[in-house]
Amino acid sequence: QLDSISQQINGAQRLISTNINKGVTIGGYGEITYNQPENSNGELDVQRLVLLLGYKFSDKVQFVTEIEFEHVKEVYIEQAFVNYNVAANFNVRGGLMLVPMGIVNEYHEPTTFNGTERPSVDNVIVPTTWREIGIGVNGRLPNMNLGYQAYIFNGFKSSDVNGEEGVNGILKGSNGLRSGRQKGAQSTMSSPTFAGKIDFYGIQGLRLGASGYFGKTQTDHEIETIDGSTIGITMLGLDARYNYHRFSARGQFIYASLSDTDAYNVITGNDLGSVLQGWYLEGAYNLLPQKNKQKLVAFTRYENYDTHADVAGNLVKNGSYDRTEITAGLSYHIAPGVVVKGDYQFRDNALSQDTVKDRLNFGIGVWF
Amino acid sequence: QLDSISQQINGAQRLISTNINKGVTIGGYGEITYNQPENSNGELDVQRLVLLLGYKFSDKVQFVTEIEFEHVKEVYIEQAFVNYNVAANFNVRGGLMLVPMGIVNEYHEPTTFNGTERPSVDNVIVPTTWREIGIGVNGRLPNMNLGYQAYIFNGFKSSDVNGEEGVNGILKGSNGLRSGRQKGAQSTMSSPTFAGKIDFYGIQGLRLGASGYFGKTQTDHEIETIDGSTIGITMLGLDARYNYHRFSARGQFIYASLSDTDAYNVITGNDLGSVLQGWYLEGAYNLLPQKNKQKLVAFTRYENYDTHADVAGNLVKNGSYDRTEITAGLSYHIAPGVVVKGDYQFRDNALSQDTVKDRLNFGIGVWF
Amino acid sequence: QLDSISQQINGAQRLISTNINKGVTIGGYGEITYNQPENSNGELDVQRLVLLLGYKFSDKVQFVTEIEFEHVKEVYIEQAFVNYNVAANFNVRGGLMLVPMGIVNEYHEPTTFNGTERPSVDNVIVPTTWREIGIGVNGRLPNMNLGYQAYIFNGFKSSDVNGEEGVNGILKGSNGLRSGRQKGAQSTMSSPTFAGKIDFYGIQGLRLGASGYFGKTQTDHEIETIDGSTIGITMLGLDARYNYHRFSARGQFIYASLSDTDAYNVITGNDLGSVLQGWYLEGAYNLLPQKNKQKLVAFTRYENYDTHADVAGNLVKNGSYDRTEITAGLSYHIAPGVVVKGDYQFRDNALSQDTVKDRLNFGIGVWF
Repeated sequence: QLDSISQQINGAQRLISTNINKGVTIGGYGEITYNQPENSNGELDVQRLVLLLGYKFSDKVQFVTEIEFEHVKEVYIEQAFVNYNVAANFNVRGGLMLVPMGIVNEYHEPTTFNGTERPSVDNVIVPTTWREIGIGVNGRLPNMNLGYQAYIFNGFKSSDVNGEEGVNGILKGSNGLRSGRQKGAQSTMSSPTFAGKIDFYGIQGLRLGASGYFGKTQTDHEIETIDGSTIGITMLGLDARYNYHRFSARGQFIYASLSDTDAYNVITGNDLGSVLQGWYLEGAYNLLPQKNKQKLVAFTRYENYDTHADVAGNLVKNGSYDRTEITAGLSYHIAPGVVVKGDYQFRDNALSQDTVKDRLNFGIGVWF
Repeated sequence: QLDSISQQINGAQRLISTNINKGVTIGGYGEITYNQPENSNGELDVQRLVLLLGYKFSDKVQFVTEIEFEHVKEVYIEQAFVNYNVAANFNVRGGLMLVPMGIVNEYHEPTTFNGTERPSVDNVIVPTTWREIGIGVNGRLPNMNLGYQAYIFNGFKSSDVNGEEGVNGILKGSNGLRSGRQKGAQSTMSSPTFAGKIDFYGIQGLRLGASGYFGKTQTDHEIETIDGSTIGITMLGLDARYNYHRFSARGQFIYASLSDTDAYNVITGNDLGSVLQGWYLEGAYNLLPQKNKQKLVAFTRYENYDTHADVAGNLVKNGSYDRTEITAGLSYHIAPGVVVKGDYQFRDNALSQDTVKDRLNFGIGVWF
Repeated sequence: QLDSISQQINGAQRLISTNINKGVTIGGYGEITYNQPENSNGELDVQRLVLLLGYKFSDKVQFVTEIEFEHVKEVYIEQAFVNYNVAANFNVRGGLMLVPMGIVNEYHEPTTFNGTERPSVDNVIVPTTWREIGIGVNGRLPNMNLGYQAYIFNGFKSSDVNGEEGVNGILKGSNGLRSGRQKGAQSTMSSPTFAGKIDFYGIQGLRLGASGYFGKTQTDHEIETIDGSTIGITMLGLDARYNYHRFSARGQFIYASLSDTDAYNVITGNDLGSVLQGWYLEGAYNLLPQKNKQKLVAFTRYENYDTHADVAGNLVKNGSYDRTEITAGLSYHIAPGVVVKGDYQFRDNALSQDTVKDRLNFGIGVWF
């Protein structure tokens, strides 16, 4: 009876918490979107369709995988991990997993967030869907009302060999770390990285999270001694979700400090910033009576994010990377698990002459 | 007990009509084919394998998707829509859907048609599988024994930007509109199109259909004011399917009138016809007693289709686009849902020296 | 209760032997691997994730398919066949099937073999996963404790047209026939090939197999009369698997004689050997008590394989193709169907200065 938003679980967690003693569990989610920028043609897209598959080998051992089909004709395995419930509130988990940072990277099913598109902070600053192969532990400290996660992950790839020991830079100013995701696909590992998150769920309707990610980027063996082929990353995140009757709110702040970007930009010719930063706040209200199965949620979200929050060396800040977005719209939940969305995005950047188009979006989302 | 041919439903309809109250339904279909043209080498292919996935969120709301794997290593989401049963005999449906035109575009499961390959009319004139993102209504008028469908769809893309506002033509004479299908993959929308179909099922064993499709093609914003970058389409279709004891027959006629093809051909250098037209008639007889679970169906189909049924401006009709095919063969249904097919195709065109090879085909088809 | 190793069945066989009378069966397997060569960077990969889907149309007719996702973003249909149980111990089977040669090509689920990576003999000599479209029979001779398989398959493609009737060679010395697999994807067929296997299971815990594969390679019609565009293949295999309490062992010998490689190498400029040969022996011991559900298996495997075991014409043997590998490690079965693997591979070739790096491997494998 509890709907998935108030439970605040995601697809993988739902599979893991199944009552079924043994065997296969199947689910999925999908998003079909229509983006209409001002003064341009619209784009209609089956943005993603995801198959969730779980298997319970025993009381203690489960496998979970997400097979994602993007833009109709691309495929990615997005999660594939074994969870071993070693003791009460203590699990060891290994495989291709989501990095716990912010809200949407772990909770990206379309019925769990407002807006046709995910928040931009969760695309440009947190490179959602951010997943790598790793291993670690997670569980709960029930007395303290805390959930914990701590993993060793493979990291971003910042550069690769270009010809005879030349260096090709993969990361760039406009989207920060996003292009460096290796996604578990024949990924290069030169040094491990650490990711952890603490969630507090001690107050009814409230969930608070604090995340950290620490490590160096990866590169090819032939060039890893070249100064600037890799950079260091410290990313910190705070997030909050709150539900009270028909009202809900959420917010998130992400700060990432990158070291050695000066050397990186010199040898690659790229324009990677030394600080990435973004935050958003969102308020929402269900316009229908709470007893209804259907919900019609009106929401507004304010976002600011900048991949040149700071720059190192001679690099000059690019104002087009300092972005502000206001999104306002409706989420109409026809049934639990099915949502029709419509919103308008006022988009701006820090340049004197704004070059970002506002746009109208519609979407259909399902999660089962 | 009713087999799928007499029920005349397709995979998506079967999922939607499931008795199961809630939850996941899984099905699929597949075709493995062997084509042996005269005087050449054969081709063996896992032509398609399709996963059907349905989910019933409530009595009224369902999601259906088809994930298609073609030629072993390509993938396409072919259908992905939400069906909302607003009232008895009235559904609102939105997402990636099949355009209702002719028989095979909606009913393409291999056990529902005779012949290893689908009719050529349903490939060259109706660009099966023709699907786009859209929204609309469907249902039944039971007193009149009618089924109805009416949708707004995104249309074909006829051209895109080539360099600095040059126009690249996507549609061509040999296959008409086929190359213009956008398939819901980051598809461009500049104007909506309309598709509708009426089916009459008031006479036992007979099903009659009349389809219409009306609209303009889509193009990129930068070139949409250029004369000939888009064309207009009016497509009309009539189809009939009939079963009587061991005898069955089906036929179809499709006529498409395209406007502005003269301007289109001038700016793109292509040879698109102004009228596309095709039809076929097929008779079939089950050689085994009707009480048997197995069926051995002998059939013959005559097809004629022409993508240069008419041409505009200075374009000269290409006789190689005026094609005739006679297909004769057997469909051996080992069990309901499994068919082994074999047939020979006599293929001809209107050129004085026929350049189309006859061919022998074998196939294995499953639908579950 | 019998675990899958002692049952010695594979995923497809498990689907076919399901007790369920009718309907869909779903399973899968997957491997996530970490390869760390000495003096280099490691590679982390979701090597494969496979969806197994079976459907029972009736007591006698079943369909089985494997959809394989490799390296996160590639997809292949790896099996797709109909099995028709015509009589007791006699099945007719057609579609995309595994060629029965050696152990691992048919039994490649990660919990059924030791070592993070499959034996190299089963990659370079037997080009696992070796599958083509074919048709044939299989079953058992229970009085003689024999299983039999006999199939007509489409063959390897050795060459294709290069420009105006030039010949492009597909097979090469370093990996023998591997690059010639057509995998059922729009595959060219110019002549059929034959594959058969006999398995003896008359002694408790022991399974012996003898395989044969005979035929010519395929090529394009335009060049098939050119001498050397195709070659002849005779491949023979012997394999044994043995389990006794906590001890198990397996071994395999494969010999392939290729004809016309001299002409093939002359017209293509390639260096294909005339004899490919390989073998391995492996011993393993479960370190945990047999009554435990978990198993911790220590194993050692010795392999030798050479794609230039003999060469024809003027071709000089390449010592780097004559390889020896010793693999030693552990397989920790956390639960039936879930394994964590770790091993070290001492790798060598016949060149005076060894150029093959040793490596450390870890893996997670699941089969359900």
